[in-house]
Amino acid sequence: MSQVYNFSAGPAMLPAEVLKQAQEELLSWQGLGTSVMEISHRSPEFLAVAQESERDLRDLMAIPDNYTVLFMHGGGRGQFAAVPLNLAAKGQRAMHLVSGSWSKASVVEASKYIQADSADIRFERDGTIGASLDMMPELSTDTAFVHYCPNETVDGIELFGVPQTDKTIVADMSSNILSRPVNVADYGVIWAGAQKNIGPSGLSVVIVRSDLLGSPQADTPVILDYTAAANNESMFNTPPTYSWYLSGLVFKWLKQQGGVAAVEAINRQKAELLYECIDASALYNNRIAAENRSRMNVVFQLADESLNAEFLAQAKDNGLHALKGHRSVGGMRASIYNAMPLIGVQTLVEFMREFERTKG
Amino acid sequence: MSQVYNFSAGPAMLPAEVLKQAQEELLSWQGLGTSVMEISHRSPEFLAVAQESERDLRDLMAIPDNYTVLFMHGGGRGQFAAVPLNLAAKGQRAMHLVSGSWSKASVVEASKYIQADSADIRFERDGTIGASLDMMPELSTDTAFVHYCPNETVDGIELFGVPQTDKTIVADMSSNILSRPVNVADYGVIWAGAQKNIGPSGLSVVIVRSDLLGSPQADTPVILDYTAAANNESMFNTPPTYSWYLSGLVFKWLKQQGGVAAVEAINRQKAELLYECIDASALYNNRIAAENRSRMNVVFQLADESLNAEFLAQAKDNGLHALKGHRSVGGMRASIYNAMPLIGVQTLVEFMREFERTKG
Repeated sequence: MSQVYNFSAGPAMLPAEVLKQAQEELLSWQGLGTSVMEISHRSPEFLAVAQESERDLRDLMAIPDNYTVLFMHGGGRGQFAAVPLNLAAKGQRAMHLVSGSWSKASVVEASKYIQADSADIRFERDGTIGASLDMMPELSTDTAFVHYCPNETVDGIELFGVPQTDKTIVADMSSNILSRPVNVADYGVIWAGAQKNIGPSGLSVVIVRSDLLGSPQADTPVILDYTAAANNESMFNTPPTYSWYLSGLVFKWLKQQGGVAAVEAINRQKAELLYECIDASALYNNRIAAENRSRMNVVFQLADESLNAEFLAQAKDNGLHALKGHRSVGGMRASIYNAMPLIGVQTLVEFMREFERTKG
Repeated sequence: MSQVYNFSAGPAMLPAEVLKQAQEELLSWQGLGTSVMEISHRSPEFLAVAQESERDLRDLMAIPDNYTVLFMHGGGRGQFAAVPLNLAAKGQRAMHLVSGSWSKASVVEASKYIQADSADIRFERDGTIGASLDMMPELSTDTAFVHYCPNETVDGIELFGVPQTDKTIVADMSSNILSRPVNVADYGVIWAGAQKNIGPSGLSVVIVRSDLLGSPQADTPVILDYTAAANNESMFNTPPTYSWYLSGLVFKWLKQQGGVAAVEAINRQKAELLYECIDASALYNNRIAAENRSRMNVVFQLADESLNAEFLAQAKDNGLHALKGHRSVGGMRASIYNAMPLIGVQTLVEFMREFERTKG
């Protein structure tokens, strides 16, 4: 098998070094003679994993001391419920900024617990599609929080600013957490499903300003309860230990790469390379406004859609996997999270040029 | 490192053959050049895993066609909420039979959504502790379901019968699913957190009679919603794919062992060996009534508790790990799920005899 680059949107590519380490220690971890996935979450050995992974994440994101870090079950759909259940009273208002399909989905789930206001912040202008935080409407005084999604995986739309408001800001960073520095203090909650930039699916990371804890709605299921998780070091229930362990390895790997700022520089380079290739081409097209072009999920269409199947088949033959766009938007999508090396994008770009030369 | 036998109650030992296969294919699964944990849950390759694991579980448990099998996030605490949310109307009654600490905990969570009646079915008799389904009280006609836990991991109490009632029976089989044949048709719902007899933590398996689907409470979080899961082949949200894959390997392993009846024969042998050792000893003591002695979690106390620390230390030196009892009951606990080979229990028994000879 020659080298494969996997552009899956999630579950997604993990750093090769992390998987290699996981493989080496799968049967006997730390000389224990058992796998890390076989030991109690309350064993001293696993508690060390838990503490170290939190410490590394705090270092990487410069998380202030007045924030609590939680490792919870589930992914985005779970957090769509957890956010209103933990941050608002039953029936209270909260504003959801809709920039794509994930932020849109958050409204549906939140509506079960609160008055989930929403505002469409997408625009279409001169043939380009984008979204702008300036389109946030005025907020009523009883708004508990403003929820938004700074990177829309399906749409390929990224928002590089922060909503301007004195309300609590909640960011669904599932697909761009740790891809560039953010100022955690700007947010009330940053949450992320793990399966794009952190680890395997089944784990969510939640960074919550500690003063927001303490008032979950009475019928919050305990597995979605930030306060119960905070009071029990994320071990009120048995956490998804193997995913947590792998996430810890990813955090270590990020530190070895030089941290988030260093990784951001590579992420910029990867995205620029790919957008340049698309912009220079007559075959490939990306309609996202320049200021919203995602560095994580690069969507593009082929001018001649009848070539889609051949593009995907030839790409796969060249070790370039999972480039098919989300079924709701079609076309292609290259997800280039932290774990995707520059050479992977270079290989993709070479392939795209060659495909256009022969077929375009 | 010499051979280790891991008696952890959960996350627990997995079959050595399963871990070996997982290790071999961790970096390149099915020749794809990527890990199974890196691919989309909607890829044809993962969908095959999902379908095959369901088929194997159906074979192993002889699950009738009118039952739906779900693979969901979370574990027991999640299902404590999911059961009432999916099976009862807001405020409706349901009966919870309390035989130990897990069934007791289920009442607390259910009380958020329904009138969670409970009945203590434990007894203490002639110095033994046990529980009896005959102690179930009469049920009011509007009882939506009867929830019980046929194996109490912490207490070491197993119930080998089935509650006698025409109400829907819900069984928390987290710690004894697949350890012996059960008649699925006796139950409305059988559910299990994976981390004892199925796979790593972070996954729950739910077997639900299909006519019970369709009426979740309006504010059921979608990640706990049986109906949404059933309508989307457990992929309304991204499932915990790696845990699911490992569970599928465990199901294949069980089939290779000859299925559940064959595994039950070994489980009986393992438990008998250990209880015989305890009963023949002046140092070790198990107070569970004969008819309730768990085949999965064998709890025992040392007559001289000052020897506890030395027992645990020497056991560990002999490769016998995680024998400490749950902090709420103290003493020792040997969890001997399906993955624990007979030789592991034989080695434990030899060690216990030798320890008693030198220290008892």
